[in-house]
Amino acid sequence: MVSAPEVAANLATAERLIIEAAAEGAEVALLPEYFCLMGRRDTDKLDIKEAPGGPIQTYLAECARRHRITIIGGTVPMISAKAGRVLNTCTVFGPDGALIARYDKIHLFGFKRGDEKFDEAATILPGRTPVVCGLPTAAGPLLRTGLSICYDLRFPELYRQMSPVDLIVVPSAFTYTTGQAHWELLLRARAVENQCYVLAAAQGGTHTTGRRTWGHSMLVDPWGEIKAVLPEGEGVVCGIVDAARIAEVRSSLPALTHRVL
Amino acid sequence: MVSAPEVAANLATAERLIIEAAAEGAEVALLPEYFCLMGRRDTDKLDIKEAPGGPIQTYLAECARRHRITIIGGTVPMISAKAGRVLNTCTVFGPDGALIARYDKIHLFGFKRGDEKFDEAATILPGRTPVVCGLPTAAGPLLRTGLSICYDLRFPELYRQMSPVDLIVVPSAFTYTTGQAHWELLLRARAVENQCYVLAAAQGGTHTTGRRTWGHSMLVDPWGEIKAVLPEGEGVVCGIVDAARIAEVRSSLPALTHRVL
Repeated sequence: MVSAPEVAANLATAERLIIEAAAEGAEVALLPEYFCLMGRRDTDKLDIKEAPGGPIQTYLAECARRHRITIIGGTVPMISAKAGRVLNTCTVFGPDGALIARYDKIHLFGFKRGDEKFDEAATILPGRTPVVCGLPTAAGPLLRTGLSICYDLRFPELYRQMSPVDLIVVPSAFTYTTGQAHWELLLRARAVENQCYVLAAAQGGTHTTGRRTWGHSMLVDPWGEIKAVLPEGEGVVCGIVDAARIAEVRSSLPALTHRVL
Repeated sequence: MVSAPEVAANLATAERLIIEAAAEGAEVALLPEYFCLMGRRDTDKLDIKEAPGGPIQTYLAECARRHRITIIGGTVPMISAKAGRVLNTCTVFGPDGALIARYDKIHLFGFKRGDEKFDEAATILPGRTPVVCGLPTAAGPLLRTGLSICYDLRFPELYRQMSPVDLIVVPSAFTYTTGQAHWELLLRARAVENQCYVLAAAQGGTHTTGRRTWGHSMLVDPWGEIKAVLPEGEGVVCGIVDAARIAEVRSSLPALTHRVL
């Protein structure tokens, strides 16, 4: 997505893309971080903060139910105990519309170089707990899925705490600068070292606010191969999480059984 | 290097390359894993195992002293407490010939796919302790250096235990198959996530035994940029570990201060 400052427009775009994914046969859809709002100011997200079960989450739940698909709902600004700060929260809804899991972003982005300056900690309160959830699949077994958000990607220890998982998801809004330098590299590294699929949905394009994000939403397989990618713009990246491929990689190179530290 | 089964020839090659590096102004030289022996059989290394201070280590120490350079001596098969198995040990000697540090490889490579089969654990006893050492530099301050060996590269938790370091070294002998798939990716990821230089010396070429290694010895900077690389064959990869560059990266993106898990 290339989200705008208008929430209603973003929600409509999200549903349109989810319908497209469902039509391609997707059982799980991942939205990018801040899918519901890329604001003009950092503090814009405070204006739409909501409690658990709030309107954006309800929209996601209804979307999931309407289109019979599991939705990993990018992130929603969730009310926190601290005035002036929200949690950057990923909520997951099953095809029956029920909440499956919730993860609050742990690592908050800070970056300063030339004109570029970001300080998530000014408006976001960090979470503390890694979350792994089981997603329903038509094949039967739950898809063991580790939730993470954007800047979390730079911290391998988060993923080691979640391992073993079949799938890591990374809803994101990487900047153009850091994305160009590190996005693909870190997604592929997490897939290889944890021998699992990595699915990353990113904001990607020039937003109406002038900010530019890197995009390159992609699915990476457990050997580090990019199975599908969308460089920029709105769209759907579709692929298969293949349990046999995971088993094959872990059997030929049993690195996960070699962990000792 | 493209080491052979003959130890004396390998040592002579190592010294020739160290002289070349010293002539380019290098203060530290890193040799690849198994620089002293790429045997015909896995068990060949047992025949040349030595105690601390043994002949290969003495050769390295004298080399360091003769050419006034710090040598991170790839690996030497070190006598272990267990019959039939050695430690895969990296020894470090300062320009005065004194031993600075020693690291025993912790993670042992196992791989099986088609005709390719490797099982280091059959002949190697694993180490247990990460090692960080200070290397002397002409500029004054010690270069805080984390030691690791080849397959260790797949385990990010080892490097997180050593962090913060200025430099990670990875003497290696990656296979052609796994090297092509993951070598550059994992070296660059370790550099980016730990915001330090990564220097990796690898066996690279077709050995007289028929085995083929991936090579691509390289120096990577803390932003993940490859500063120098040698795809294959014998040779020297030379570059600068720049403290100002480390500081610049850590100041613009203070990720190491954001670790909480």
